[in-house]
Amino acid sequence: MKPVNVGICGLGTVGGGTFNVLKRNADEIARRAGREIRVSHVGMRQTKEGFDFDGCTISNDIFAVARDPDVDVVCEMIGGYDTAFELVMTAIENGKHVVTANKALIAERGNEIFAAAKAKSVMVVYEAAVAGGIPIIKAVREGFAGNKVNWLAGIINGTGNFILTEMRDKGRSFEDVLKEAQELGYAEADPTFDVEGIDACHKLTILSSIAFGTPLAFDKAYTEGISRITAQDVTYAEELGYRIKHLGISKRTDKGIELRVHPTLIPETRLLANVDGVMNAVVVHGDAVGPTLHYGAGAGAEPTASAVVADIVDVVRALELNDVQRVPPLAFHTQQTDIDILPIDQIESAYYLRLEVEDRAGVMADIARILGEQDISMEAIIQKEPQEIGGEVSVILLTRKVLESSLNQAIADIEALSSTLGKITRIRVETLKD
Amino acid sequence: MKPVNVGICGLGTVGGGTFNVLKRNADEIARRAGREIRVSHVGMRQTKEGFDFDGCTISNDIFAVARDPDVDVVCEMIGGYDTAFELVMTAIENGKHVVTANKALIAERGNEIFAAAKAKSVMVVYEAAVAGGIPIIKAVREGFAGNKVNWLAGIINGTGNFILTEMRDKGRSFEDVLKEAQELGYAEADPTFDVEGIDACHKLTILSSIAFGTPLAFDKAYTEGISRITAQDVTYAEELGYRIKHLGISKRTDKGIELRVHPTLIPETRLLANVDGVMNAVVVHGDAVGPTLHYGAGAGAEPTASAVVADIVDVVRALELNDVQRVPPLAFHTQQTDIDILPIDQIESAYYLRLEVEDRAGVMADIARILGEQDISMEAIIQKEPQEIGGEVSVILLTRKVLESSLNQAIADIEALSSTLGKITRIRVETLKD
Repeated sequence: MKPVNVGICGLGTVGGGTFNVLKRNADEIARRAGREIRVSHVGMRQTKEGFDFDGCTISNDIFAVARDPDVDVVCEMIGGYDTAFELVMTAIENGKHVVTANKALIAERGNEIFAAAKAKSVMVVYEAAVAGGIPIIKAVREGFAGNKVNWLAGIINGTGNFILTEMRDKGRSFEDVLKEAQELGYAEADPTFDVEGIDACHKLTILSSIAFGTPLAFDKAYTEGISRITAQDVTYAEELGYRIKHLGISKRTDKGIELRVHPTLIPETRLLANVDGVMNAVVVHGDAVGPTLHYGAGAGAEPTASAVVADIVDVVRALELNDVQRVPPLAFHTQQTDIDILPIDQIESAYYLRLEVEDRAGVMADIARILGEQDISMEAIIQKEPQEIGGEVSVILLTRKVLESSLNQAIADIEALSSTLGKITRIRVETLKD
Repeated sequence: MKPVNVGICGLGTVGGGTFNVLKRNADEIARRAGREIRVSHVGMRQTKEGFDFDGCTISNDIFAVARDPDVDVVCEMIGGYDTAFELVMTAIENGKHVVTANKALIAERGNEIFAAAKAKSVMVVYEAAVAGGIPIIKAVREGFAGNKVNWLAGIINGTGNFILTEMRDKGRSFEDVLKEAQELGYAEADPTFDVEGIDACHKLTILSSIAFGTPLAFDKAYTEGISRITAQDVTYAEELGYRIKHLGISKRTDKGIELRVHPTLIPETRLLANVDGVMNAVVVHGDAVGPTLHYGAGAGAEPTASAVVADIVDVVRALELNDVQRVPPLAFHTQQTDIDILPIDQIESAYYLRLEVEDRAGVMADIARILGEQDISMEAIIQKEPQEIGGEVSVILLTRKVLESSLNQAIADIEALSSTLGKITRIRVETLKD
């Protein structure tokens, strides 16, 4: 059989990694795929050094790759929004299958892209868009096809996890670690996407859709970053037997689907609590399979290329088919559109609260009264002695599960007490049990 | 499209679980598969109670299912060797696709079965045979298709892991925990398959084949059980920062492939060291993706059914194809047959050694001399003070990496010393790093 021709658009980290892995493992990949897979065309604005472009057309216009009649599969490796969208749509119009690692593009414009792909009978695959080298899309979309997924929760941003790991291990502040992460190249000069949870939310949006069979709903997700987590909170969480992780969580409930990214206390005995540094991990809980965990590198040239190449092999295996959409891009042939994404104040969660109060009689009674009014019961209370007589006292509360709107009311009422100093810190708590 | 008819042979734990999951999640499964999937025929020696057999033919001859012209997919859920083999071959001869959870059958007779399946253009799938509900076959076979797999290591027998976990947590003896495991139903009345590593070796044989693209080679694997592990070894391992796990390990080396199941010390900081109780986990290390871990329930009715149903959905997606073997059963279209499975004395490993010696001068010098003769260097040495003056001393040695045949020579020489009392305990050590 003749070789399959792959076109790579963009030769940065992911594109370069894909180019190298396809070359280095060409024999092994051909033995798996049943056909030779070769890079026939590379598009990049400026021609890069250090690659063996032998037998490969080079274009400085990436759109030339998407229109090349000899290319079977187009890899969109440029990232970003508008040009990437235009490139993917051009490739689809030209009857090319598309592989992308672009989470923002899929999460925000996937519904349009998949509709176009269906109309032109081509595949658009994106394993590399979520959790890098971990084959989590395949696991949820195919491996758990027999399950009704109950919930999933993941550490899906390596930068954020690196920062939280360093804060815990070394008692350092958020700002301090962020600066180091930027120097090490783990964090961008503008770290907003990573530390404010937008990147994680893109990935969560995709996972939620393929787990529950609902349309992509990025604009309905709740996102909260880690920039307000203090070294103190990390320490108090540990005293309570928890670790703070930046999680993407999506759950199916009777009221609708929860879709939220935020710092979360999880019990330190969970495997997920022990996923450290830049590593990623996703827990998926299915009604038949129970809890499962999938761990690996969430970024980097070669781990991401691992996912891109697996996708290319999947496409190659489907090339001769009439119906390439046997595995639908978002896992379900028919999506459930009558199910709501819950607003964040309608979720149910346990909570960690930290407040500073005046050191005087009756303060705890007032707090207890307010919590009682909202039917909030306590799992644990820690009161930290003041540094000086009459100074302020830190109170840490761990609540049982409660509706978030009730908790918000309690927080407002407690903050209104004259004995409460400043704002209350609130972090959600998940046990990650059934 | 008309429904796909599934025939289930054997309605025990796995067959019953599969029946129930297919019924309970029928709607969700149909939305994923694009077609209704229903159980049309159940074969079981004696008709069981407690199932809703509505619309389902019942046969007390399981072979009637394999020959039923209306059945599209046959699930072999009877376990065991000879009858299961005959059943699978009958199904294949009758042009049926086969789903099985039978690790012994695939590991020992898979080469024959897959050849027959290829000749008849049917699929034989077996995700449930390895690590229950964890989609590890799919991950290795498809998810890591871009990688040259370097090694894999897994806790793939829940009974053994339950026993080792209890021994560590509660300082109990092997015999004591085994008895409880039998009472709880985690271990069979004859526990040989589980505790001597045969079950794990069946699973490892399959994983190794799909990771490295080599034929199944169960008869060349090395297997050692956990029955000789003492509570003392568990404690000493912990003092050294390790945990003892019963691992299946397969590595690609320049000399050949290592294929071995045995108790193993692993650093306590590894996620794998923290996989406790009856849970399973497999670490796969690919050249591009790096280390990945896949965790979940390795047994039980519903987790195993989760894998069986995913396999059925994969078959359904391929039903209309001419070439159903696009994903070859053992991952590679062309297998590498010129690569050897290494005999156990040709592997390289680090080792934990425990020996009892007389408490007198010169003993340690003799041991050090013998180790030096075999070029074995030490990572750590612990010497336990004797209970009484002149009593015996326990010495625990942790070696660096060495060829096993050299270590065997050193053990023989040390055991021949007049100061050495009894046999030396030897447990292999793996760091599970690159």
